[in-house]
Amino acid sequence: MSLLLINKLTAKPGRRDEAMAILLESGRAFEGIGACLMYLVSRDADDDDVIWVQDVWTDEAAHERAMADPAMQEQVRRAVPLLAGMPEQHRVEPAGGKSPFPLPPADAH
Amino acid sequence: MSLLLINKLTAKPGRRDEAMAILLESGRAFEGIGACLMYLVSRDADDDDVIWVQDVWTDEAAHERAMADPAMQEQVRRAVPLLAGMPEQHRVEPAGGKSPFPLPPADAH
Repeated sequence: MSLLLINKLTAKPGRRDEAMAILLESGRAFEGIGACLMYLVSRDADDDDVIWVQDVWTDEAAHERAMADPAMQEQVRRAVPLLAGMPEQHRVEPAGGKSPFPLPPADAH
Repeated sequence: MSLLLINKLTAKPGRRDEAMAILLESGRAFEGIGACLMYLVSRDADDDDVIWVQDVWTDEAAHERAMADPAMQEQVRRAVPLLAGMPEQHRVEPAGGKSPFPLPPADAH
């Protein structure tokens, strides 16, 4: 079962660019991880402090392994002081649509 | 400039599957639209009423054309009564990451 995460992060005022730079840098590690199908860092167009990170993984264990990597943990430690509070994370199950990556069968639910 | 939308829809209790079926059906029209790079309909794993729709378009005009299509408007009219209130829509600007579709240059902001 693939795992899709939608993360809403709110930076402290004026710190969004710095926080995004760390998120983009840490995401470079995912380039070489086949189980990471997508990792997208975006600015909210209407809220100057908000960052969205959407990532898709072939399975939850692969995601946990990637996040447990000491280099990744160090990036997380660098990013946290730039944020206003904890990220809001939504775990979602793709059901279908026009997808650039393989989706589970529609009746998997 | 590409357009990325993150939509959070809340269905009336017990109506999520019906609402998702309409969203998936209406999304079939996007298969033939090259400007639609992604259209993903997902269930929230932790909230039984919540649906997430993430779509990516090469440009805003293409998205507006697709939504103005009378057949699409009819699907919207069918879906609205199944929802508890208005969808929450976030317009976001992809900045980078591991992407299954082309992203604008990192310095486009």
